[in-house]
Amino acid sequence: MLGLMMDTQLSIPAILEYAGKYHSKSEVVTRQDDGSLHRYTYKDCLGRTSQLAHGLKALGLKVGDRVATLAWNNFRHLELYFAVPGIGCVLHTINPRLFKEQIEFIINDAQDQFVFVDAMFVPLVEAVIARTPSVRAVVVMTDRAKMPATGLKNIICYEDLLHGQPQTKQWPALDERTASGLCYTSGTTGNPKGVLYSHRSTVLHAMTVNVPGVMGFMPTDVFLPVVPMFHVNAWCSPYSAAMAGVKMIMPGPRLDGNSLIELIHGEKITVTAGVPTVWLGLLNAAATQKVSLKPLERVLVGGAACPQAMFDAFAAHGATAIHAWGMTETSPLGSVSTLGSSEANLDPDEAMKLLLKQGRAPFGVEMRITDADGHSLDWDGVARGQLEVRGPWITSGYFNNPDRSSFSNDGWFQTGDVATIDGNGFMQIVDRIKDVIKSGGEWISSIDIENLAMSHPSVAEAAVIAREDAQWGERPRLIVCLKPDTKITGAELLAIIAPGVAKWWIPEDFIIVTELPHSATGKVLKNRLRETYGAQNHPMAQKLG
Amino acid sequence: MLGLMMDTQLSIPAILEYAGKYHSKSEVVTRQDDGSLHRYTYKDCLGRTSQLAHGLKALGLKVGDRVATLAWNNFRHLELYFAVPGIGCVLHTINPRLFKEQIEFIINDAQDQFVFVDAMFVPLVEAVIARTPSVRAVVVMTDRAKMPATGLKNIICYEDLLHGQPQTKQWPALDERTASGLCYTSGTTGNPKGVLYSHRSTVLHAMTVNVPGVMGFMPTDVFLPVVPMFHVNAWCSPYSAAMAGVKMIMPGPRLDGNSLIELIHGEKITVTAGVPTVWLGLLNAAATQKVSLKPLERVLVGGAACPQAMFDAFAAHGATAIHAWGMTETSPLGSVSTLGSSEANLDPDEAMKLLLKQGRAPFGVEMRITDADGHSLDWDGVARGQLEVRGPWITSGYFNNPDRSSFSNDGWFQTGDVATIDGNGFMQIVDRIKDVIKSGGEWISSIDIENLAMSHPSVAEAAVIAREDAQWGERPRLIVCLKPDTKITGAELLAIIAPGVAKWWIPEDFIIVTELPHSATGKVLKNRLRETYGAQNHPMAQKLG
Repeated sequence: MLGLMMDTQLSIPAILEYAGKYHSKSEVVTRQDDGSLHRYTYKDCLGRTSQLAHGLKALGLKVGDRVATLAWNNFRHLELYFAVPGIGCVLHTINPRLFKEQIEFIINDAQDQFVFVDAMFVPLVEAVIARTPSVRAVVVMTDRAKMPATGLKNIICYEDLLHGQPQTKQWPALDERTASGLCYTSGTTGNPKGVLYSHRSTVLHAMTVNVPGVMGFMPTDVFLPVVPMFHVNAWCSPYSAAMAGVKMIMPGPRLDGNSLIELIHGEKITVTAGVPTVWLGLLNAAATQKVSLKPLERVLVGGAACPQAMFDAFAAHGATAIHAWGMTETSPLGSVSTLGSSEANLDPDEAMKLLLKQGRAPFGVEMRITDADGHSLDWDGVARGQLEVRGPWITSGYFNNPDRSSFSNDGWFQTGDVATIDGNGFMQIVDRIKDVIKSGGEWISSIDIENLAMSHPSVAEAAVIAREDAQWGERPRLIVCLKPDTKITGAELLAIIAPGVAKWWIPEDFIIVTELPHSATGKVLKNRLRETYGAQNHPMAQKLG
Repeated sequence: MLGLMMDTQLSIPAILEYAGKYHSKSEVVTRQDDGSLHRYTYKDCLGRTSQLAHGLKALGLKVGDRVATLAWNNFRHLELYFAVPGIGCVLHTINPRLFKEQIEFIINDAQDQFVFVDAMFVPLVEAVIARTPSVRAVVVMTDRAKMPATGLKNIICYEDLLHGQPQTKQWPALDERTASGLCYTSGTTGNPKGVLYSHRSTVLHAMTVNVPGVMGFMPTDVFLPVVPMFHVNAWCSPYSAAMAGVKMIMPGPRLDGNSLIELIHGEKITVTAGVPTVWLGLLNAAATQKVSLKPLERVLVGGAACPQAMFDAFAAHGATAIHAWGMTETSPLGSVSTLGSSEANLDPDEAMKLLLKQGRAPFGVEMRITDADGHSLDWDGVARGQLEVRGPWITSGYFNNPDRSSFSNDGWFQTGDVATIDGNGFMQIVDRIKDVIKSGGEWISSIDIENLAMSHPSVAEAAVIAREDAQWGERPRLIVCLKPDTKITGAELLAIIAPGVAKWWIPEDFIIVTELPHSATGKVLKNRLRETYGAQNHPMAQKLG
């Protein structure tokens, strides 16, 4: 027997219709390229988004067509966030920091029909347009007076697209499972893979981002999304903010500490969201300027682990850092580190240990950790297994890609992370599964051993890789790079590693190298180390101990 | 093109699975009939709820069967909240304050197969059981030692039902639109009508109750649901609280001010929810005892309008009253009066005027106001029309009842309330549509005229009804009941009414009566007044003016 409730479909344009009607006077403020502030209300935004939707239809777009953006956080990008899915098309946000070849690949993979770009990204489009034949025209997100000079042939001014169009729109009735957005993961190996969001997944995720303990927008909050709108939909925060009618400040391209401080003070920002690198810049600028970050209250930290120093630094400004974890494949919210009533009375050190973990799933995300055979492991805070997740905003596959290697037989998404989960649901990522050493059917995590090795005063950098082993399959091998004019012995390394890990985790040997290979983003390329130093009997290997 | 997101169905038992795993140590505390406190954790609750689900299956219940409860807020009722819908059955919560005849009607209408009752309600069941043949057995929600003496034949002890059953449960995979709960509206006319909730509507509604500005549960909150679990699912708050892992205090049958104060202080309650009558009792008890209500922070006030004095009284205790509106048909959350950033700088008087309104819809509820012809009216805070709502937790019809008189031709639910909506979405209910006077195609609201008349020192009570009118269809007629030993003239009434309403709203005549007829709950029975005094030329009518 079905319930007798209205069959209203969850819908992305309904979010902006809501903000435009119920919070009609709340503002969206944009820091423009020239530094000036553009201001309008959600009511204005709804009117212009309706015009944009009519303009998009006039371009001949049909349900399911992909429309790409290369843009910073600004009001036109926000209009595209609602208008493109609103007419049943798919918004494909492209990270302009990708390599040219990657941008070409994903435009071709997505078969984008139009690319909307900030004026500053026109040269980027010029560089790829010859090899992206699906693109029918490039729309520059500016007004006629500011149109850049370009040799691009099919070029449209954004404001021309809106001009004269009606300011209201009857949005089409769509099945809530209709595709709405597309983001590509920029994996370290292989081609990027597309994650295809739906109206349903986006609305449910935005509602969840908005629970207290995550963003938890109060209608009186003022929100600064520093995380770019090309980075997993800015963690869905523009949708969550509009859903709550929250005043939103779009920072445009200027994400340096001084620019952010100016916005925080000038617009009285209470909540923000971004990656640790940006927060380091902000905190350093505040220290240099000797200013407080008031009225900032909450800072969502994601994209990389939030170190304790960052919790402390924000606390000194009266703000709370909120540590969250997620992936493109998880929309992205997978977990958040917020204490509950049963943790409220922990002493500060114990509480900080929990906050430094990746945290608890919000309602809607199911987690499990599994061993090499796919068996679920205990939630005891000790057992380490691959983290797998399931839920209405978790991907069930990749766009245009039959690869099922990231999914368990029973359909859970395998994150590629190795994690522990404690008895109260706090998850902690301890390694990447590709970096784990599988020794005699058990897993040895590289990170713990590396951290111990790096605590030796002579060690500049350390990496633990899997070497071949006839008896155990794999064994850990420590690779170290020394500081100038220092030495180290196997006995010293053993003395520093042995007290910190189980006996069978201790590497038998180590290799001293002059330099570790790194990726463009600074990660150690363990694949390459393994190719070079992975043989069981390597001539450079010295005994540990 | 559909998105590539997991097709996970929204599900009520998933809420408790979540709380039991991610907030395993958070407590559910129950004030029992004898005054003692029963404590356990969400983990315990999940274990016992699983046992209950197995016990229910052992009774032979099948998907779609209805199971009734007659119970206060307590941990066993909470277990039923999850176990009954968890196995695909429908939880039918019955208000024990209804008349015996109404209880019989709704048990028969619902065809309840089992009735779960608090021991104190056994006599109520004894009184109706002979005329409710669908009921196969009565389960008393207590342990064997406390089973009451009764002549009921098929009687089961709740704890016996759980005994020996497994503490885990693989919940069946259900379509999220599966019926989960049934509540009857207790209208003033006609038989009660059943509203049939689904897993989908309940989960979406619970997520929305949990946004900041409504309940907005922080994981560190401690929640006291005073609103009974038989009153529109306690406004869904037990589901919202479990979803956030919030410590919950179930008050049992003792809802007097002193008992509530004891719980607030003893359990350090931060959030509560209930009707104004209960809060009057609480505030009076606090005044008598001369105690503060700390650490109470937020008080959700619903079921009737929250007067300004109540806002002020809670503010004096450091707590914020949150004024919400809803109906059984709206799950119930329809609107909440919370200020946003564009209202943050209003002066206190202007802000209070907004807070006293029924407020803004949360995201998910669409509103409109329509005139007698069904045309949408402007949101200007002045135009008055019937309030109509739409959304995923709004009823699309009544259980077992083909009546469509509460639905517009295009499927919106017609609330029966007359309301205004201002330019920023604040809705205010100004009348019930059945009490409105339809005069020459326009509506005249009775409430404004009544309030003006009652400001005259001689008037004890006033009611404005529609009288027949040959020219206008209907015209307003004022009925007044005077204080002892007072007099009044038409000229005096005109002088007090004329400045406050439009000229064409002013009644032509009035009638003095010795007493107004009232319902059991104290409402003036305007139907009856209209029958007696509704003729155009009534012999008792005197000229106004």
